[in-house]
Amino acid sequence: MALDFERSDIGLPPGSAVYVGDRHPEEIALSIIGYDPVGSWVKSAKTVDELLQYRNASGITWINVNGFRESDAISRLAEVYKIHPLTIEDILNTEHRPKVEEFDDYLFITLKEISNPEDSPFVFDQISIVLTANTVITFQETAGDSFDGIRKRILSNLGRVRKHGAEYLAYSLMDSVVDRYFLVLDTLGATIEDFEERAVDVKDVAFISDLQETKQRLHHARRAIWPLRESLSVLLRTESVYVNEVLTPFLKDLQDNVIQAAETVESYREAISGIMEVHLSAASNRLNKVMKVLTIISTIFIPLTFIVGVYGMNFTHMPELNSVYGYPIVWGIMILIAIGMIAFFKSRDWL
Amino acid sequence: MALDFERSDIGLPPGSAVYVGDRHPEEIALSIIGYDPVGSWVKSAKTVDELLQYRNASGITWINVNGFRESDAISRLAEVYKIHPLTIEDILNTEHRPKVEEFDDYLFITLKEISNPEDSPFVFDQISIVLTANTVITFQETAGDSFDGIRKRILSNLGRVRKHGAEYLAYSLMDSVVDRYFLVLDTLGATIEDFEERAVDVKDVAFISDLQETKQRLHHARRAIWPLRESLSVLLRTESVYVNEVLTPFLKDLQDNVIQAAETVESYREAISGIMEVHLSAASNRLNKVMKVLTIISTIFIPLTFIVGVYGMNFTHMPELNSVYGYPIVWGIMILIAIGMIAFFKSRDWL
Amino acid sequence: MALDFERSDIGLPPGSAVYVGDRHPEEIALSIIGYDPVGSWVKSAKTVDELLQYRNASGITWINVNGFRESDAISRLAEVYKIHPLTIEDILNTEHRPKVEEFDDYLFITLKEISNPEDSPFVFDQISIVLTANTVITFQETAGDSFDGIRKRILSNLGRVRKHGAEYLAYSLMDSVVDRYFLVLDTLGATIEDFEERAVDVKDVAFISDLQETKQRLHHARRAIWPLRESLSVLLRTESVYVNEVLTPFLKDLQDNVIQAAETVESYREAISGIMEVHLSAASNRLNKVMKVLTIISTIFIPLTFIVGVYGMNFTHMPELNSVYGYPIVWGIMILIAIGMIAFFKSRDWL
Amino acid sequence: MALDFERSDIGLPPGSAVYVGDRHPEEIALSIIGYDPVGSWVKSAKTVDELLQYRNASGITWINVNGFRESDAISRLAEVYKIHPLTIEDILNTEHRPKVEEFDDYLFITLKEISNPEDSPFVFDQISIVLTANTVITFQETAGDSFDGIRKRILSNLGRVRKHGAEYLAYSLMDSVVDRYFLVLDTLGATIEDFEERAVDVKDVAFISDLQETKQRLHHARRAIWPLRESLSVLLRTESVYVNEVLTPFLKDLQDNVIQAAETVESYREAISGIMEVHLSAASNRLNKVMKVLTIISTIFIPLTFIVGVYGMNFTHMPELNSVYGYPIVWGIMILIAIGMIAFFKSRDWL
Amino acid sequence: MALDFERSDIGLPPGSAVYVGDRHPEEIALSIIGYDPVGSWVKSAKTVDELLQYRNASGITWINVNGFRESDAISRLAEVYKIHPLTIEDILNTEHRPKVEEFDDYLFITLKEISNPEDSPFVFDQISIVLTANTVITFQETAGDSFDGIRKRILSNLGRVRKHGAEYLAYSLMDSVVDRYFLVLDTLGATIEDFEERAVDVKDVAFISDLQETKQRLHHARRAIWPLRESLSVLLRTESVYVNEVLTPFLKDLQDNVIQAAETVESYREAISGIMEVHLSAASNRLNKVMKVLTIISTIFIPLTFIVGVYGMNFTHMPELNSVYGYPIVWGIMILIAIGMIAFFKSRDWL
Repeated sequence: MALDFERSDIGLPPGSAVYVGDRHPEEIALSIIGYDPVGSWVKSAKTVDELLQYRNASGITWINVNGFRESDAISRLAEVYKIHPLTIEDILNTEHRPKVEEFDDYLFITLKEISNPEDSPFVFDQISIVLTANTVITFQETAGDSFDGIRKRILSNLGRVRKHGAEYLAYSLMDSVVDRYFLVLDTLGATIEDFEERAVDVKDVAFISDLQETKQRLHHARRAIWPLRESLSVLLRTESVYVNEVLTPFLKDLQDNVIQAAETVESYREAISGIMEVHLSAASNRLNKVMKVLTIISTIFIPLTFIVGVYGMNFTHMPELNSVYGYPIVWGIMILIAIGMIAFFKSRDWL
Repeated sequence: MALDFERSDIGLPPGSAVYVGDRHPEEIALSIIGYDPVGSWVKSAKTVDELLQYRNASGITWINVNGFRESDAISRLAEVYKIHPLTIEDILNTEHRPKVEEFDDYLFITLKEISNPEDSPFVFDQISIVLTANTVITFQETAGDSFDGIRKRILSNLGRVRKHGAEYLAYSLMDSVVDRYFLVLDTLGATIEDFEERAVDVKDVAFISDLQETKQRLHHARRAIWPLRESLSVLLRTESVYVNEVLTPFLKDLQDNVIQAAETVESYREAISGIMEVHLSAASNRLNKVMKVLTIISTIFIPLTFIVGVYGMNFTHMPELNSVYGYPIVWGIMILIAIGMIAFFKSRDWL
Repeated sequence: MALDFERSDIGLPPGSAVYVGDRHPEEIALSIIGYDPVGSWVKSAKTVDELLQYRNASGITWINVNGFRESDAISRLAEVYKIHPLTIEDILNTEHRPKVEEFDDYLFITLKEISNPEDSPFVFDQISIVLTANTVITFQETAGDSFDGIRKRILSNLGRVRKHGAEYLAYSLMDSVVDRYFLVLDTLGATIEDFEERAVDVKDVAFISDLQETKQRLHHARRAIWPLRESLSVLLRTESVYVNEVLTPFLKDLQDNVIQAAETVESYREAISGIMEVHLSAASNRLNKVMKVLTIISTIFIPLTFIVGVYGMNFTHMPELNSVYGYPIVWGIMILIAIGMIAFFKSRDWL
Repeated sequence: MALDFERSDIGLPPGSAVYVGDRHPEEIALSIIGYDPVGSWVKSAKTVDELLQYRNASGITWINVNGFRESDAISRLAEVYKIHPLTIEDILNTEHRPKVEEFDDYLFITLKEISNPEDSPFVFDQISIVLTANTVITFQETAGDSFDGIRKRILSNLGRVRKHGAEYLAYSLMDSVVDRYFLVLDTLGATIEDFEERAVDVKDVAFISDLQETKQRLHHARRAIWPLRESLSVLLRTESVYVNEVLTPFLKDLQDNVIQAAETVESYREAISGIMEVHLSAASNRLNKVMKVLTIISTIFIPLTFIVGVYGMNFTHMPELNSVYGYPIVWGIMILIAIGMIAFFKSRDWL
Repeated sequence: MALDFERSDIGLPPGSAVYVGDRHPEEIALSIIGYDPVGSWVKSAKTVDELLQYRNASGITWINVNGFRESDAISRLAEVYKIHPLTIEDILNTEHRPKVEEFDDYLFITLKEISNPEDSPFVFDQISIVLTANTVITFQETAGDSFDGIRKRILSNLGRVRKHGAEYLAYSLMDSVVDRYFLVLDTLGATIEDFEERAVDVKDVAFISDLQETKQRLHHARRAIWPLRESLSVLLRTESVYVNEVLTPFLKDLQDNVIQAAETVESYREAISGIMEVHLSAASNRLNKVMKVLTIISTIFIPLTFIVGVYGMNFTHMPELNSVYGYPIVWGIMILIAIGMIAFFKSRDWL
């Protein structure tokens, strides 16, 4: 559920390596990629120590950790790479808000991958990146495919990634996560256009729930996207050792993309408010029309019913009743009244 | 009451040691814990002077004061630890907003513990922490159990607390208070989900009062949580002697938690606004449906009643009346009219 | 009137000593208090020059001016104490927003005293304080009693005031004004609680006007309170000669109080919006219920009326009419229809 | 029209001296005032060159230009006083937002004079001031009388203006424009109070249009007032050569006035929103009351009409019909039903 | 569609030269203009290399690229002028938000041209400007005519453009784009005035959709205009080599224009909200009036129908029936009741 919010580490000392998230933690899967401008290789391993054997001194190393079940493995990694216990806590707490934090030995980045499964709320997967001198370690709650493109680019030496340092790899990983926001927003944009088209005619009360649900989704997307912008801006402002002259335009570009995504979310929220207003106006308009027509029908017949009631009275002395023309005259009067009322309502534009 | 707001010290000179709060101040209960990396001990006392005997020169001392009835005892503590009269006033004024303030001899922290008793508004307990070189003094309005975990960790030497200084103890105490926010927000999240499920179908007018009451609660929670973030940010920015390199990441982590709590409160408020809108739309939709059906029933019968009224007239010359087929023909006409009207309403999608 | 807003000095050169306010300026009343840690005395005078005789060289002097009718007297004071014409203009313009402004020879403080007479809007009295090296001059539009407590404390040597300099006196005066805000807010809190209790049941249209009127009051209170916070914050930031080390914690405490008052005002506004929403929902709900019941009564009887109309027709050949059981059978049918409709409405939860 | 917005210089090179405004530019009228602490004189002229003859070396010169028809004259002035073409463009573009801008040779100030003709929207006249070392040049779109007071004060040596430099004159001119805001706001305040009094009872739909129109006016007033505050604040912050020690308190005072005007506009907007809410509630309440009473009348008579219908049936066997007491008994029953219904409605507080 | 949002470069390495936009990219059209204070010439070319032949060493060169189909040509340009791949990506991504970014070798400016085709949403064309030492390169998605005026001014040596450097040309191009905003806003202002006039009387439900659609347009216009202001402000603050003393007032003027455009957009949004409120109030008022009149007609006839029903009863003993005056008396009573009710409704102001 969107509002579900659980922290199973409450009461524990700060910095405890405990998984905090709302899904069943998957089994751990470790992989390592090494590369330099000349070559590259990839290995996967069962344990951290097996994995660490594959490290080689020169070049860039990228370690990927999928699944958080065995926190022992993660603790071991933390030990080797001197990762602060609080960073480990943040990695395992998959409800953490996006941030970029600089430590003595590494830069810690955590951000959200957004995916949009068919007919269900957004899924937010936390992706954490630890960037040290020449190693990048990534942590994913579940095995996603967002890094596949980069993996392929490294192994086939496409693009710039092999030519640059670990910082560029970290940037590329963030970039690939942010690129996905546009995919998700694209799908959502189609949904909103669909809402827009149905706004006037739809009669189902579920429409409003749907709109609200989409608004909530956008709110959650905003929470996942917005803090990243701030963090990137801090990173660019402070003279971090992880941000060199080559990287700066790329980070600025990433920041532009994050802002664009956040602004699109804002536009969608605005659009939904507009759709809501149009929908409610249309519904109320439709009802009012119906009620007006129904009321007018009653209003025409009630005086006529009174007239026929008059000649249904049983007074002994009612001269009209004995007249041969009484009956047709009454009909004539009633038809005139009906026509008069309809004409009056038409003239007033009530019909 | 949530809106109850009393200051019994109005008119008194500033810095007067007077209890300001809306509950009956409990009797004072004093306890002292001493520890260093090697060992630890705990004592409780009846008077401040008795308590102060237990202090020992080396190691960290943690004095806890529960209940504010005997302000003499608190004045005595203030005297011994050179606490500014205004700090004492802030400790006793349990309506004070959270803050962190640096004095010459100590750091003063005041924050709110939030608890959520069954079926009643939030309870906000003020917790004040005075942090001096190697002593932490905590003040609680009522005997709460938020510090039990830390007490246990000190005495059993679990976690990091025994290894670090008084600052770390103060941080741990704040952390344990902030951790509780998530417990309370968790419960509230369940309530809001429950609201969400009932929003469309519930017919009780109390539902709206409940929503508003929850909104008010969130507003109060926000007031208790938000200022803390600002204070922590000031503390991290200024070069305080109480914030060393070891503590910084922990304080940043605490700040992250406070922000996460505050953002969750914001999300809940947003969710409640959405629920309100869905509820009102559903209620209005339901009513409109009922009224439409009822109006349609009347609209069908009113013309028919007119027709039977026509043949209830007592004119002497009404040829239809004497016809053998008059009666069944009228019935036929009326049935046709009724069917025609129903068909028309159906075709217009009014039924 | 709350919205009344008059500036009688328009067109005059800036810095003219003209009373700008919406009340009849009272006759001037001058008083002077002198004190040092050892002793104190108080005098009142008819003219400024008489008053100035009472000054003595050592110790602190506090001059209080009540009523603004004789601006000559005020001009004379300005001359003696080198007060800038614009300060005098600000003192006499009782619509001025609160501020703290540092001049070469003095610190000028202007703030609002809020009082809440029975059943009428808030009254805002402007209080201006001119703080020079060892003299405090206070200006009050009308004779209020907000300074009585401090006067008593000085004369009886209670609290700290006699021990500190003129700055502390100025602070104490501001503090006593701000303390009164809580009294007024307390009363208002009770009013709002009362609104809260009546929100669901009250049927008087004046309720909404009352809510709006209270909202306007809160808006005016906010305008009176909020700028003070900013001014104090500027005063604390800039290295003013009037703010020494002793005074700083007191000013911070004052600022905390001002923020607390402003936040309480915010909470009240929020509460009033909630009350409005609950009230409107309850009223609309109540009306809808009534209309539904009334409509259902009509809806039950209209078909029955049609049936009796049928048997009121005067056709010669209506076989039912001659049947002995016709009449009771029709009654039976009608009762069945009525029961059926009621059952149907109940099953649909419309009744 | 308030929304009218035209720029006739689109497509022209930037800095073109073209009049941009929505009124017919008046013929140019030039006047010059010279003064020093000792004396003063005033002249008017047909052409700029004639005007410039009257300049004298010592003392302060104030040139006033009314009407923008002959932009040649203005170009000539610009040439003599080295005014940047963009400044000339800003002077002639009377839709420009208020600002204070420092150039190498002069300070350029543009602000709006607001006037409030009977029964029509606000009129915004742009006033531009060019302040050089000892000359002030003012530009007015139409001949207004806002500067008359200052002219008189200079010529009769009232107030401070003759004693100070050109900066003080420029300040006085701005002050006289800002002072007028309060006149306009005063009138508007009376209008809003009038709205407030009529809010509950007025039945004309034009009331809402009037409120919206006033809100739009306030929005435009805000746009005319607010940017000035920012500009003044920039002027006070930067170390401008045009702001000396003597002028600073006067500029701060001016800024206070501008803030007060802007806050009053804010208060009025708030008040109008409140009035709208009260008005709509009152209107809806009134309608609901009417509909309820009408519906209750129908609801009482419909069952009675059914009863009389029953005894209008023509069954041969209806024992009640032949009873002597039938008729009065039916009347009795109907009266009882009517009373019962009324009592029921009263007990439920529906009547 | 306004909400359409596509990024076809997702998954590609950052800095890929891929066209991202929602229109069919036009064929490339290259042109080059050279000028110095003495002379000027213009050429167009098929390929970049052909174009580059026309460059001459002295003077200013302006290269214009229309259409993005052949990205090879653009890549070639990038190579020659050392344009960063990310800049090329930004040029081709026509959904990019406006910005000004300084690179080592050039200043990159991207902004939106807004045009307003008859009866269709705004069209946003992205215009990118690369400003190097003495060359300006402009990129347009489609062949627009916004630069025609400047082209003419260069070739005919009108205005200042020939006298200044490349920076002034870049400024002029931005200025001509921003000037067009006022044309578009002008048209929109007329539309909004038209809405304003129709707000009270229009009965079409499409009116609300139209208002919402205009609001969306304004939202998009705001997104196109607002970021420019920020970028210009950064450019003016930072000590850019591209901003010299001559250019500063022109850039400030441009910034003023951008702010004015953005504020006009804000005013329009505010106006639309007001129109919506007036429209909904008027519609609801109209409906209420109709329903009230209809209900009153029913309310008058229902009691009369009851009365005639009474005398339609078939009781044997109904003394009134045999009275000669019975019938006229009943008529009299009914007329009195009708008049009484109408008088009552009138007195209550219900009719």
